[in-house]
Amino acid sequence: MNYCSECGAPVALTIPTGDTRLRHVCTDCGTIHYRNPKLVVGTIPEWKDRILLCRRAIEPRHGKWTLPAGFMETQESTAEAAARETLEEACARVEIGEMFTLIDVPAISQVHIFYRARLLDTDFHPGEESLETTLFSETGIPWDDIAFHTVTLTLRHYFEDRRNGGWRFRAMTLPMAYSSNDAWPRG
Amino acid sequence: MNYCSECGAPVALTIPTGDTRLRHVCTDCGTIHYRNPKLVVGTIPEWKDRILLCRRAIEPRHGKWTLPAGFMETQESTAEAAARETLEEACARVEIGEMFTLIDVPAISQVHIFYRARLLDTDFHPGEESLETTLFSETGIPWDDIAFHTVTLTLRHYFEDRRNGGWRFRAMTLPMAYSSNDAWPRG
Repeated sequence: MNYCSECGAPVALTIPTGDTRLRHVCTDCGTIHYRNPKLVVGTIPEWKDRILLCRRAIEPRHGKWTLPAGFMETQESTAEAAARETLEEACARVEIGEMFTLIDVPAISQVHIFYRARLLDTDFHPGEESLETTLFSETGIPWDDIAFHTVTLTLRHYFEDRRNGGWRFRAMTLPMAYSSNDAWPRG
Repeated sequence: MNYCSECGAPVALTIPTGDTRLRHVCTDCGTIHYRNPKLVVGTIPEWKDRILLCRRAIEPRHGKWTLPAGFMETQESTAEAAARETLEEACARVEIGEMFTLIDVPAISQVHIFYRARLLDTDFHPGEESLETTLFSETGIPWDDIAFHTVTLTLRHYFEDRRNGGWRFRAMTLPMAYSSNDAWPRG
């Protein structure tokens, strides 16, 4: 950030009065431009004993597999964002179920949320950002080719709970060692 | 948003190629300036059968009671944000427990999260943004003077679960009728 989005004057990194952190503050109008973590929201789309993954058509992680997910938009709920991203990336219609994981990724200032979701039909196909959309059973999951650590974590807990016959929400923090490699692309 | 924070040129509201929503796009360098929902994170600080509320010293809702909470900062986890806000608003040290509520407030593009938390001692006192910090039993909660609907919802579920002897995470969306009045103040 170099310029004030309100008045166009240069900004400076300073600690505002009563604050404890460096902020981008306008040198002319004084507006404080805060930065905040972003929410990435998606689904675990279920069809009988299989779940739907998307193979990425865009960088980063071109060719790798992911659960459908993306940046939450303004004026929508997390569940609406999850359903929208599933429709955009896999052209798949789902009934949203329970929130399953919330994973902090502090190194990149993101929070990733995944909902369980029931596919309404198998009439899905790749959206613009996907090369393939495929249903996988647990034994078929391409574990070595998953695009993001938060997806791997979510899938592992998903199959663990399914084997145990009970679903449990988990809030977790991704260890810093994994985090910096896990930025969700904008798009 | 009037000007590009990267290059200082004016921005225009247009739908970028491949997108479906109006975005602020720089008329010179082409940078797309996305807007995203913000996370507000706090705690339900417990001391035996009582919980700690803060009476607000700032607008909006000056004089009303709230759980300690505030905007999540970059490069922290939701649990770290919850503990930090509790320290800032009530000068209270807590051990963070389980995530208890996640409440979408789409009308104002916010997501509010509250953690259960155990006060480590009763040596708390008002921070700069609080007039009072007080422990309340369920019967003493000032229900008519709670600052935000998401706090009221969280407290109601908290006491419901405590009576029932079991804690259950809840993800909810605040009905639109209540939302527009629920913006968390920056600060």
